[in-house]
Amino acid sequence: MRLDIISAVPELLDSFFQNSIVKRAQDKGHVEVHIHNLHDYGIGKYKQIDDYPFGGGAGMVLMIEPIAQLIRQLQAERTYDEIIYTAPDGERFNQKTANTLSMAENLIILCGHYKGIDERLREIFVTKEISIGDYVLSGGELAASVISDAIIRLLPGVLGDETSALTDSFQDNLLAPPVYTRPSEWEGHRVPDILLSGHDAKIQDWRHEQAVERTQQRRPDLLS
Amino acid sequence: MRLDIISAVPELLDSFFQNSIVKRAQDKGHVEVHIHNLHDYGIGKYKQIDDYPFGGGAGMVLMIEPIAQLIRQLQAERTYDEIIYTAPDGERFNQKTANTLSMAENLIILCGHYKGIDERLREIFVTKEISIGDYVLSGGELAASVISDAIIRLLPGVLGDETSALTDSFQDNLLAPPVYTRPSEWEGHRVPDILLSGHDAKIQDWRHEQAVERTQQRRPDLLS
Repeated sequence: MRLDIISAVPELLDSFFQNSIVKRAQDKGHVEVHIHNLHDYGIGKYKQIDDYPFGGGAGMVLMIEPIAQLIRQLQAERTYDEIIYTAPDGERFNQKTANTLSMAENLIILCGHYKGIDERLREIFVTKEISIGDYVLSGGELAASVISDAIIRLLPGVLGDETSALTDSFQDNLLAPPVYTRPSEWEGHRVPDILLSGHDAKIQDWRHEQAVERTQQRRPDLLS
Repeated sequence: MRLDIISAVPELLDSFFQNSIVKRAQDKGHVEVHIHNLHDYGIGKYKQIDDYPFGGGAGMVLMIEPIAQLIRQLQAERTYDEIIYTAPDGERFNQKTANTLSMAENLIILCGHYKGIDERLREIFVTKEISIGDYVLSGGELAASVISDAIIRLLPGVLGDETSALTDSFQDNLLAPPVYTRPSEWEGHRVPDILLSGHDAKIQDWRHEQAVERTQQRRPDLLS
């Protein structure tokens, strides 16, 4: 998979893409990430990328031209499955969307910043608008990191143990069961006996029951 | 506000807390952020912080002792409003929770990693479990960054223009209206005339109508 991320504040993306699982996924060749600094495509002597909103009001708006120029340049080189824009009014991101996007070959993620991007960019170029949740962030960089992380960890070969992602929350519409590790007793708090029993089939049953119970209590909407 | 973040991979938090709005908020004294490396509290010669799950299965589990020791040390120094754990089965984070948390004085955010933390930590120490959305991430660091960003930008004095946050999506249960900036015409695509009219009252009406219409189309659940 190739991922092109367009940002006005690319420094915000550095430590995420240079560490942990996403870094290893790039080193192993599972994903190629290209971060584009919007300032490199700014207009005029001052490399302008944003301007005041028409009609007044607080905040700045990212201009059409720098973004359009960059997207067209990328599109001339290859076909993109989606041009994603991160915005609070987009469709809500979930594990199903992550699964679908993990099968794409080329993706662009355009990070909003300040008050957003000129609406015409959304109409002309963007094919998918994604919100990671009902809250407002200072920019789309964290949203782009969240989307990238959720997708990249699903690519074959990225997680050390292939079964690990399959037992995560949401993959079967169930929340994950509780987990415990050593010591088996800590200040009087004991691990459930069943987990120490060595009966693998019973442990699997218990985990499934716990997952169902937890989902019923916390997120009954996932079961319907 | 003081924010203590506990992480097994603190490098993932670096560029977020060292840039942009969050950096400026720290420089201006609006928020004090302390990032704690869990490895500094590891057990034994190898500074162990995680171990295999009881009952078998893929993934590692963060152990009780290093986290308990660090939380107790912090609690001995001050009282915390909440000890937050980032987990996919927590309550879903939204703008209302961000507003509430922005009024706290001291917060701990504990980042999950690998397969999660020992369940007993959740029972004994954690006071609030937050999920940023229905998807799985490799670790809680991005979730902690998202929560921190949403909170910090609400602190008085952090955003340059105080009115900016009030016109964001969700603050009044409406999505934000579309925004436009120069040029007024780009490759035949024109900005709506009303925004160029200079009639401030009419522009405000138009924006409100657009916000309502967009919310009805995309997120009717917010209006009910």
